[in-house]
Amino acid sequence: MNVKDIAKQARRSAAELAAAPTERKNQALKLMGEKLSERAGEVLSANEEDLCRAEGDGLEQKLVARLRFGEDKISSRVRCLEKIAALEDPVGQTFAAGRRPNGLEVARVRVPLGVILMIYEARPHVTVNAGAFCLKSGNAAILRGGSEARQCNEMLGALWRESLTEAGLPEDAVQVVSGSHEEIGELLTLDEYVDLVIPRGGKGLIRSIAEKSRIPVIKHFEGVCHVYIDDGADVARAIEIAIDSKCLMPEVCNAMETVLVAEGASGAMGDIVEAFSRHGVTVRGCERTRELAEGVEPADEDDWRTEYLDTVVSIRVVGDVADAIEHINKYGSHHTDSIVTDSESRARRFLAGVDSGVVLVNASTMFCDGESLGMGAEIGISTDKLHARGPMGLEELTTYKFAIRGDGHVMGNWNG
Amino acid sequence: MNVKDIAKQARRSAAELAAAPTERKNQALKLMGEKLSERAGEVLSANEEDLCRAEGDGLEQKLVARLRFGEDKISSRVRCLEKIAALEDPVGQTFAAGRRPNGLEVARVRVPLGVILMIYEARPHVTVNAGAFCLKSGNAAILRGGSEARQCNEMLGALWRESLTEAGLPEDAVQVVSGSHEEIGELLTLDEYVDLVIPRGGKGLIRSIAEKSRIPVIKHFEGVCHVYIDDGADVARAIEIAIDSKCLMPEVCNAMETVLVAEGASGAMGDIVEAFSRHGVTVRGCERTRELAEGVEPADEDDWRTEYLDTVVSIRVVGDVADAIEHINKYGSHHTDSIVTDSESRARRFLAGVDSGVVLVNASTMFCDGESLGMGAEIGISTDKLHARGPMGLEELTTYKFAIRGDGHVMGNWNG
Repeated sequence: MNVKDIAKQARRSAAELAAAPTERKNQALKLMGEKLSERAGEVLSANEEDLCRAEGDGLEQKLVARLRFGEDKISSRVRCLEKIAALEDPVGQTFAAGRRPNGLEVARVRVPLGVILMIYEARPHVTVNAGAFCLKSGNAAILRGGSEARQCNEMLGALWRESLTEAGLPEDAVQVVSGSHEEIGELLTLDEYVDLVIPRGGKGLIRSIAEKSRIPVIKHFEGVCHVYIDDGADVARAIEIAIDSKCLMPEVCNAMETVLVAEGASGAMGDIVEAFSRHGVTVRGCERTRELAEGVEPADEDDWRTEYLDTVVSIRVVGDVADAIEHINKYGSHHTDSIVTDSESRARRFLAGVDSGVVLVNASTMFCDGESLGMGAEIGISTDKLHARGPMGLEELTTYKFAIRGDGHVMGNWNG
Repeated sequence: MNVKDIAKQARRSAAELAAAPTERKNQALKLMGEKLSERAGEVLSANEEDLCRAEGDGLEQKLVARLRFGEDKISSRVRCLEKIAALEDPVGQTFAAGRRPNGLEVARVRVPLGVILMIYEARPHVTVNAGAFCLKSGNAAILRGGSEARQCNEMLGALWRESLTEAGLPEDAVQVVSGSHEEIGELLTLDEYVDLVIPRGGKGLIRSIAEKSRIPVIKHFEGVCHVYIDDGADVARAIEIAIDSKCLMPEVCNAMETVLVAEGASGAMGDIVEAFSRHGVTVRGCERTRELAEGVEPADEDDWRTEYLDTVVSIRVVGDVADAIEHINKYGSHHTDSIVTDSESRARRFLAGVDSGVVLVNASTMFCDGESLGMGAEIGISTDKLHARGPMGLEELTTYKFAIRGDGHVMGNWNG
């Protein structure tokens, strides 16, 4: 692949896409959905080839599972495309607009960022989602999935090209690329053509991209998420929130990994541990936890920093809300953390003190997702602070320009 | 200097500052203003030492001028501190808040970014402004001015420390550092402690920082700004806007460098050139310009890319608004560009087509400043697209977190 050509084609497409009417972008999304349904057989057999190769290569079973793109996944992608088509188009929206005392009309107008490069592992569904998100927000996309998903991604890339062409949009607006590590390295230097890099995957991948890239990166790091059970919290409610946060989807980044229990609430430890065991979750705990309940494996310092993404939980007893905040800011990943409490003052303290993108009171960490938060859907969850934090929707893929209208306004007096 | 200690002290101060009440931050700003006035003599003599050394070292005259921090500059800094104290505190403001159909209360709350590193050349007044901006927005600041301004910056750093301490804030909330290029290079790797780098200065400085930094950078590049005079525009108005954009403050980044004149408006070229000459501006022009008016030096390709920052202007005749947009996007720096027109459709086309942070209709490029745009004041003008574009005020130095309140909300059904 010629890296520079890909980047230049993306830049050219972006200029066209920025001015494309919403209907045309929605039309391309609709066509992509239709093609995915009609040609599901081809997509499934491309995925089958990837799966065979992956098993032959002895890929880890967890990764093979992520690689699978079955009929259920295809129909959920079709629904996702419909959902994104139904979302409001952020491009052209104005905000913070008004008339200045001197009569100047000042507005900020949302415009696309330009060209977005997504780098991700396995999961071919990202090739559909990320393409749709970039397209709807008027950005050209360069999608670089993992080599293990190559066949399926190429097939999806072909469907994108057809959908774009039939909708009258530039066919290079969504480019699915493979390319070696060196080629991706080269792509990451082309800040003249690419405006943003979003890496999704393991910590190592993300860090290496952030270090190499000359293009701004919004990192989507792991989620070491917490539920803190406060002194005086309703025990049944606390357990339900902790179980939901851990067990509903243990494999997602906003699943909880560590329960912090206030010393004053530690009388409920037996019930807490019992509930996790009943749901098939292995419990590791600090010494105090192990004094309070049976069947708890010892947890060490490493556990507090670990994203299990599995049916394993760590539990630690802390003094009070201040200790909980300290633990979370020290060991967590600034992602999603929740307090279960009956105290308004401690709820406020937790909301203010925890330095994470999403902080919840009396709710499961599962609610850290774009749809729950009213953004329609999300392209990912940023663990960065610049530009976008927490779930990223369409708006987070735009920037703005100041549009200013005067009536011959000047600052100096040139008649003197 | 121990780079890591500086970064750690900043991080610690940032945690304290994030929770500091507005009054205390304003108190520190007020104290800084008082100290600047009362101890102006010491500041002036520190600046005098820097000036002597600079002249001894044979520093360029333009840089020596920027280095001067006279009584007028001191009193304008005192006013600037008062202005920033009077601005609304963005920290704690909520936006995009509402109740979801399931009853979850979702809000985004503005919080400080954390630690901001400013790297800049000469101009000691940045040490006052940038410190005040970071402080008011709840961010700890590390300020690294040019070595040529060392004495004056150290003096200002001492005044910051005193002001912070007397206001009951951490004395390391504003740190003025010197340090070698190697030490600054080390600082730029400490993304664990520093959240944002804002470099201001020459293109070379900014590019080198952006390439070295592991910390996100918001670049403040040069301004190659344009005024486009459309076919049918009122000639007197067009000339007044062009003269204001060039002559009011030729040394600032939003001063205009190139006038584009529609072929249909080229009948006014004699008057345009004559107006510039009358205001002491050297005119360089394309061939067509030189056919149309006397006393125009030839401009070449390089001129279209040059930020003169001086009483020099380049003029080019273009076909129409489409050609003007193409020229601006190709040769400009995506900073500030203006159209003078009587046509609403061409105004819209220009606003949509020019890919710059600030785009104006019938107004001077001088209005690209934080105060004119209703932001109170500005810490700089971003030529980047991520996070902040155009003038950056207090709000642009914050990020947000999602604060979510439920009432025992879970996603799964755990009673089954």
